[in-house]
Amino acid sequence: MVAATEATAPKKDVPTSDIDVLIVGAGPAGYMAAAWLTRFKGLKVRIVEKRDGKIFAGQADGLQCRTLEVLDSFGFADRAWKDANHMLEISFWNPDESGKGVVRTGRIPDMMPGLSRFSQIVLHQGWVESYFRDNIRKYGGPEVEFSTMPERMEIDESAVDNDAAYPVKVVLRHLKEEAAAPEQFGHKVLNGLFRSANLVSEKEEDSGLAKEETKASVEVVNCKYVIGCDGAHSWVRRQLGFEMIGEHTDYVWGVLDIVPLTNFPDIRNRCAIHSAECGSVMVIPREGALVRFYIQLSEVERDSDGRVKRSKITPEMILAQAQKIMAPYTITYEEIQWFTAYQIGQRVVNEFSAHNRVFITGDAAHTHSPKAGQGMNTSMMDTYNLAWKIGEVCQGLASRSVLSTYGYERSMVAHDLINFDKKFAKLFSGKPAKDAADEAGISLEEFKKVFEQSHFFASGVSIDYNGSLLIAKPSPAVEDKYNPVRPSVVVSKCNLASNIPVGQRFNSFKVLNQSDARPWHMHELMKSDGRWRIIVFAGDVLDKPQMARLNKFAAHLDSDSSFVSKYTPKNRPRNGLFHFLTVHSSPRVEVELHDFPAALRPDHDYWSVYVDDMSFHEGHGEAYKNYGVDKKKGCVVVVRPDQYVSLLCELEDVEAIEKFFAEFLIPQN
Amino acid sequence: MVAATEATAPKKDVPTSDIDVLIVGAGPAGYMAAAWLTRFKGLKVRIVEKRDGKIFAGQADGLQCRTLEVLDSFGFADRAWKDANHMLEISFWNPDESGKGVVRTGRIPDMMPGLSRFSQIVLHQGWVESYFRDNIRKYGGPEVEFSTMPERMEIDESAVDNDAAYPVKVVLRHLKEEAAAPEQFGHKVLNGLFRSANLVSEKEEDSGLAKEETKASVEVVNCKYVIGCDGAHSWVRRQLGFEMIGEHTDYVWGVLDIVPLTNFPDIRNRCAIHSAECGSVMVIPREGALVRFYIQLSEVERDSDGRVKRSKITPEMILAQAQKIMAPYTITYEEIQWFTAYQIGQRVVNEFSAHNRVFITGDAAHTHSPKAGQGMNTSMMDTYNLAWKIGEVCQGLASRSVLSTYGYERSMVAHDLINFDKKFAKLFSGKPAKDAADEAGISLEEFKKVFEQSHFFASGVSIDYNGSLLIAKPSPAVEDKYNPVRPSVVVSKCNLASNIPVGQRFNSFKVLNQSDARPWHMHELMKSDGRWRIIVFAGDVLDKPQMARLNKFAAHLDSDSSFVSKYTPKNRPRNGLFHFLTVHSSPRVEVELHDFPAALRPDHDYWSVYVDDMSFHEGHGEAYKNYGVDKKKGCVVVVRPDQYVSLLCELEDVEAIEKFFAEFLIPQN
Repeated sequence: MVAATEATAPKKDVPTSDIDVLIVGAGPAGYMAAAWLTRFKGLKVRIVEKRDGKIFAGQADGLQCRTLEVLDSFGFADRAWKDANHMLEISFWNPDESGKGVVRTGRIPDMMPGLSRFSQIVLHQGWVESYFRDNIRKYGGPEVEFSTMPERMEIDESAVDNDAAYPVKVVLRHLKEEAAAPEQFGHKVLNGLFRSANLVSEKEEDSGLAKEETKASVEVVNCKYVIGCDGAHSWVRRQLGFEMIGEHTDYVWGVLDIVPLTNFPDIRNRCAIHSAECGSVMVIPREGALVRFYIQLSEVERDSDGRVKRSKITPEMILAQAQKIMAPYTITYEEIQWFTAYQIGQRVVNEFSAHNRVFITGDAAHTHSPKAGQGMNTSMMDTYNLAWKIGEVCQGLASRSVLSTYGYERSMVAHDLINFDKKFAKLFSGKPAKDAADEAGISLEEFKKVFEQSHFFASGVSIDYNGSLLIAKPSPAVEDKYNPVRPSVVVSKCNLASNIPVGQRFNSFKVLNQSDARPWHMHELMKSDGRWRIIVFAGDVLDKPQMARLNKFAAHLDSDSSFVSKYTPKNRPRNGLFHFLTVHSSPRVEVELHDFPAALRPDHDYWSVYVDDMSFHEGHGEAYKNYGVDKKKGCVVVVRPDQYVSLLCELEDVEAIEKFFAEFLIPQN
Repeated sequence: MVAATEATAPKKDVPTSDIDVLIVGAGPAGYMAAAWLTRFKGLKVRIVEKRDGKIFAGQADGLQCRTLEVLDSFGFADRAWKDANHMLEISFWNPDESGKGVVRTGRIPDMMPGLSRFSQIVLHQGWVESYFRDNIRKYGGPEVEFSTMPERMEIDESAVDNDAAYPVKVVLRHLKEEAAAPEQFGHKVLNGLFRSANLVSEKEEDSGLAKEETKASVEVVNCKYVIGCDGAHSWVRRQLGFEMIGEHTDYVWGVLDIVPLTNFPDIRNRCAIHSAECGSVMVIPREGALVRFYIQLSEVERDSDGRVKRSKITPEMILAQAQKIMAPYTITYEEIQWFTAYQIGQRVVNEFSAHNRVFITGDAAHTHSPKAGQGMNTSMMDTYNLAWKIGEVCQGLASRSVLSTYGYERSMVAHDLINFDKKFAKLFSGKPAKDAADEAGISLEEFKKVFEQSHFFASGVSIDYNGSLLIAKPSPAVEDKYNPVRPSVVVSKCNLASNIPVGQRFNSFKVLNQSDARPWHMHELMKSDGRWRIIVFAGDVLDKPQMARLNKFAAHLDSDSSFVSKYTPKNRPRNGLFHFLTVHSSPRVEVELHDFPAALRPDHDYWSVYVDDMSFHEGHGEAYKNYGVDKKKGCVVVVRPDQYVSLLCELEDVEAIEKFFAEFLIPQN
């Protein structure tokens, strides 16, 4: 496979190097990949970005619960939580009886209570990227190489199955800074194109960058893996010849980021405002006094091929439309920060990877409307799914077979997202029903119902991966000629924990540390450090037969034939690949830490054994009840490094655990 | 008053400058003063420290609830909360029946539930100082000038009452770095002297610093105010000729910071361990795997004057003693970080300020035993009490009369602390009673009782300042010839809020933002920004007569004769000196923000009006109930910039508020 661009081939004296992973694009997906791979010590990772590193106004701004859980596992969700606007309530506004104005017709919570310890927040993408940068630095990871773009990529197909090979050759060009600053379209106010937008063609975008590269330098990197995080107009995707499958709608939306002056009472709520005749507005209150408006534009000039003429769209025009929709309330602004316009496009890439060597992620793999706040989140979750697999493979811990699960798992999510978005976008862009007899219009009831149903999906916690070698449950048949995924060889005993669904993220409830009574959310103990978690619900350890079961389980762990002994690299501590977290259900004060077998608390670790008991200041976590685990007998849960549940079994089922890991882990001698 | 040191008087070409405040000493008290003064824009503040800026092991490590509330008001309690060990439980260990070993005899929570939204945590002082440094930088405050010491101080007594004068002249010497590194006493392990310790005399400490100053440079600073934060051996205190009043005990304690290897089960709890014959150990688990041990040393060599010979104390000797006390459990260590030894000294300075121009704070003003974790906290709280007063005076907002309240309020706290410490130290150093008949010994019951009582004091939230011009309640008669404090001219109607005691810190409960339903702890809205808070419990605003009361109150605020109009500088926003926070008790969804008078939400502020209602995800704050305020009629609370309650009155009592502020605020024209 040869690159499509026609740049001069590099000469022989061009600097050349071998690296493990090249990340193309420093948006949320790229940063997540870099942060995650940074936790895999010893890997050579680079991240390149064609832009010059300036932070732009606008762009994506919602962080879902699940994303916050993941950011927390890296140690910085608290920064986002502190800086962001917390969006707690949604208000619905619909035509009043006269049809000339709008009235509030309902309020619902923005998130179903109990889904996660976080709720949705809103914050500029630039902040999120800056937290990532700080985090990557803290852990010694790569700095982003700005003003750097790939211009040629070749995959040596004969070497793709060779673990030791660097089969992907990429030519990188380091641009002069000015060449990397993308143009904004002509207006005194900052404007920009939403990443899923289609008002600018791929050609146009490229042409701005080709002008000034005369003094740029060129180098060659031979990569084990390349991750394409380079957005909707992905260069990586085009090199692979992959296609975006899907459609555009006709709806055109304007976006305004302003500090409003208004007498509209719900300006600090998320609002869905439907007027009778003038279209819809969605209000997203942001950090500080900023508010984002998504405004349906009814009259816009188009090209002969139906594309909107972007130069004709001004913030004044967008605001005028908002005023019509929001009447009788008035709206103007103290300050305008950014504006743009977009048409909704809903498309998914046809392949997620080439030979499990080059991967397509984020906006490069799926585009959709921005209003549900899914884009930035799904992008980050793509590389959160992928990077640990690449990390374990590069460290020689896991076989390349695990890489097939990336496309298998994330293409499902992408398609679900598009289906969700279609429903959501139609609701928003459609006209409200005038009355019960108006069948073409969308009734308030229908709108509220879909909105409520969408919470679970939009929160990001509903994702349920299918069975595979990494998820011990039956797999549906999936055909993929390039990247076939292997089915699971063991099947979980799902009835052991009614609320720990295999394939979903392990949920978090509070438990107490046995040693010091401190309450912890389980997720706080499950950092993104690349380790597999073996969560041992030890049950009632005051019961002697139960303690005997636990001791037998621990004795197996201690043996030379156990997965702990076989797969943990010799230069790591005993809990360096498998992190044991034990949670028992006996009263804390009747049990001592030293009652537990040492295999469950290696290296004198006081942060391995927990109890489901009442805390001093934060109530009772009721972990056994919430997880649906039997308080007497407990169970064992194997959790992936990305917090997804792999396997559920009994304390006796050590053979199932052994078989599960034997499928993809590599013995360390 | 002339400096006692005999350094050469500065020559005429010595650089000379005028500044508002000189802070001497960059420990917790000095950093707090600097952070607080940084929030008062336009002030010239410097902070000097004779040490060279290296962070030492050891030193103080406990942060009380109240301290965390204050750090949170500056915006960084979360960093401490995340990095620290959380200490939740105390275990008591006493002689077993044989008298040869110890057994666990009880457990209690470390803090009474409900006192604060924080609980006590443990963390190295160096971390706390680094958070302060970051925070001071973020807000554009002064960098610490390390290796800089004052060597001469003169107060022009004729100018102390002149607001425009700089009556305190200080000669500063900038040392070569090596001269500023204090010696550690000879041992391969880091050791040091606890700040309240007395094993080293003042003379010895000075001599080490006098040696190498040949190349140092000298300058003169004329200061409006000097804050002495320079520790137990305070240079500032000595220049003023103030004396420490109090005694030393005979008890000698060793301190070890180790990563222990032990089978003692409660090593991650705070433990009070009393052996029958070998003395006591106090265990303080710290951040990471570190544990601090305070160990009573029974056999130590002394000088002829009774002082302990420090060179004879080794970590091995301290550990050996711990092993005797903790038998039958074994204890050794993987790693030792620091050790020291100290005798308990309990002393308070006889004056807290000279002419309200030079102030003594922190360890310079009071020393005591370290075990209750009071030293660092009380030091920070001293300057938290002082610096805003200096800040408002320097900005021309308040008259100098407010400065007298510093010594008045903090000397009371210092004496209470010493009394607390005497009780606490005696308990710890005394022998446990053998049985009920053993009257000389300390019974377990007595010990537990005092420990439990001490929680409220040790949490820092129990402080109750006496009446004064800043606290509207009757004052006890206090004589102070230099710094007399003025009594209150108005008296609060304390029955309006049974749980908002005038003179104590305003407690924090959760309320919801009227505009977006986000729950906030009241303290989160009361940042340390130098503003006075006017908390308006608006009651049931759906009740028309009540809304009329509120409107009348607001109309007064809008008038030219109101305190808001009179005292707010013309270049500040309407809420630039008085920050209004309104909390109503009607159901949130039945009220709109625009129903409230604009005086209560100046400048289109969406973060001024709150409601006591049920939240979506965090329950009901029950603020009216918890504050003890009538849900119908409400009340008004005036809260100082340091969160202490000044005045409690009804919505009609605008005259009382006017009289209160007229006593010390300066009209701005």
